[in-house]
Amino acid sequence: MSFDVLQDKIRAMKNPTVVGLDPKPEYVPPQMRKECYDQYGETLEGAAEAIYRFNCGLMDALCDIVPAVKPQAAYYERLGWRGMEALERTIRYAREKGFFVIADIKRGDIGSTAQAYSDGWLGKTKVGSAERTAFDADCVTINGYMGSDAIQPFIETCKAEDKCLFVLVKTSNPSSGELQDMVAGDRVVYKVMGDLTERLGRGTAGRHGFHLTGAVVGATYPSDLRELRRRLEHTFFLVPGYGAQGGTAEDVQYAFNKYGHGAIVNSSRGIMCAWQKTGRGGSDYQQAARDAAVAMRDDIKQFVTIV
Amino acid sequence: MSFDVLQDKIRAMKNPTVVGLDPKPEYVPPQMRKECYDQYGETLEGAAEAIYRFNCGLMDALCDIVPAVKPQAAYYERLGWRGMEALERTIRYAREKGFFVIADIKRGDIGSTAQAYSDGWLGKTKVGSAERTAFDADCVTINGYMGSDAIQPFIETCKAEDKCLFVLVKTSNPSSGELQDMVAGDRVVYKVMGDLTERLGRGTAGRHGFHLTGAVVGATYPSDLRELRRRLEHTFFLVPGYGAQGGTAEDVQYAFNKYGHGAIVNSSRGIMCAWQKTGRGGSDYQQAARDAAVAMRDDIKQFVTIV
Repeated sequence: MSFDVLQDKIRAMKNPTVVGLDPKPEYVPPQMRKECYDQYGETLEGAAEAIYRFNCGLMDALCDIVPAVKPQAAYYERLGWRGMEALERTIRYAREKGFFVIADIKRGDIGSTAQAYSDGWLGKTKVGSAERTAFDADCVTINGYMGSDAIQPFIETCKAEDKCLFVLVKTSNPSSGELQDMVAGDRVVYKVMGDLTERLGRGTAGRHGFHLTGAVVGATYPSDLRELRRRLEHTFFLVPGYGAQGGTAEDVQYAFNKYGHGAIVNSSRGIMCAWQKTGRGGSDYQQAARDAAVAMRDDIKQFVTIV
Repeated sequence: MSFDVLQDKIRAMKNPTVVGLDPKPEYVPPQMRKECYDQYGETLEGAAEAIYRFNCGLMDALCDIVPAVKPQAAYYERLGWRGMEALERTIRYAREKGFFVIADIKRGDIGSTAQAYSDGWLGKTKVGSAERTAFDADCVTINGYMGSDAIQPFIETCKAEDKCLFVLVKTSNPSSGELQDMVAGDRVVYKVMGDLTERLGRGTAGRHGFHLTGAVVGATYPSDLRELRRRLEHTFFLVPGYGAQGGTAEDVQYAFNKYGHGAIVNSSRGIMCAWQKTGRGGSDYQQAARDAAVAMRDDIKQFVTIV
């Protein structure tokens, strides 16, 4: 689904946030974890089943108030193919529940290899005379260090499948500036990457004015966020770094345009691990996640009005 | 296993090459493919089984003359979790056959997420009171666009497990220069990344003098390759771009130091698809791959003498 669909969901729920599904087994409430380990042993299979059930419970609790989820591939790969199988099931369940699904994979490779990634994550894979879908997300994150060769095959798949992507532009982590803030020619590197993203998306703007090529821009550098918002008019932003990493609602307001459109703010642990702060041992993980999601939405609402 | 182990294998076989296992189902000889589709249908499972059997046949044919294999994750992800299961089995089989295994994953993410990737691909994952291994490669490729935060967790895992990694520095594709060749401060971006790689590896040099932090440097830009070899004395190079992409044996010679050490050159389709050029319909795929691997070794031997 395109950024039009995402923007519509955000408007309908008046909530420009996405919940990151980055589950370590330790994040799963103890009782649920125990049931899975009792059934499958303390194995990768047991851990994969535990995080799948946890994801489903979270999505059940959030599907009427949060428009999107963002599973982070690393936490599934950590469990080998068992984890990838749980990720496939998670994405399928998320789509059934009506979520827009951003697979946070940060892949970056070239030519036929980029094509293989985009087949697997967004498109279809040809097997003999048949076409099969694998992970089937709505949207992915991409790393453009290798240049436009690494982005273009994903754009083609997105056009064919009415899907979309985010290119890493300015990331939220402390060392992001080591490369991204260097002045290269007349621009810093993250602006080079931002301009490339806006340029590659030309001709793909939807009803809300956004190209299918979005950008990842961290909440932890609000002045960069503000400048990029002005510079990249047609680029939808995925904003990590709110909460645990130090970004505030006041910071993330700069990601949005004057209509309160064009961005979605991520929180992962703040929602998933909310139960760890209520002192009830996890039996209330769904209510705790919902309360945390509402609090985040209302926090951002103080600074952003969605028209 | 570290670059010491890889360099020893290369010396023993007098062959500084790695075979890329980037299998599309179309690369599998028709008879083998047909058997798998007959058994499992034209499904992702059937395709995964076909590429696994093909990989094993190739490795059987090459294990006494080629020191390393490099499965490219994209071609397995393309088949969903079924493909990832085939990748796990491929890596296990490769290690049994004595290959050094480079998982070409080009992951790049930060903090606990980078840790999750390195747990899954190189290290161990804690599940309750147990520790489990998932993909268990010897070495991975990493994308450093996000800075040292994205590399450091892998370094820690490599230290603990006696493994190693390659950071993308100067890639072999046509658009690599869009970002990598920009002048940032006093250096081009790929040198910034190369210097960062050499610096982050300090204190980890093995018997042969190489840090556990290697670099990907493409064969298609031989003058950059020569300059980086001089500049990054302790950095082992993985060199893609030989063959199909246009790099020659004359070009790749610059990746090696005066002892003929410090680099390994990749070929994927040139070996995997060698059977397509013999006109025998694939029944000779093992011999064709072996002949192509010997030809590549001898081609490079004209320019590189391994002490």
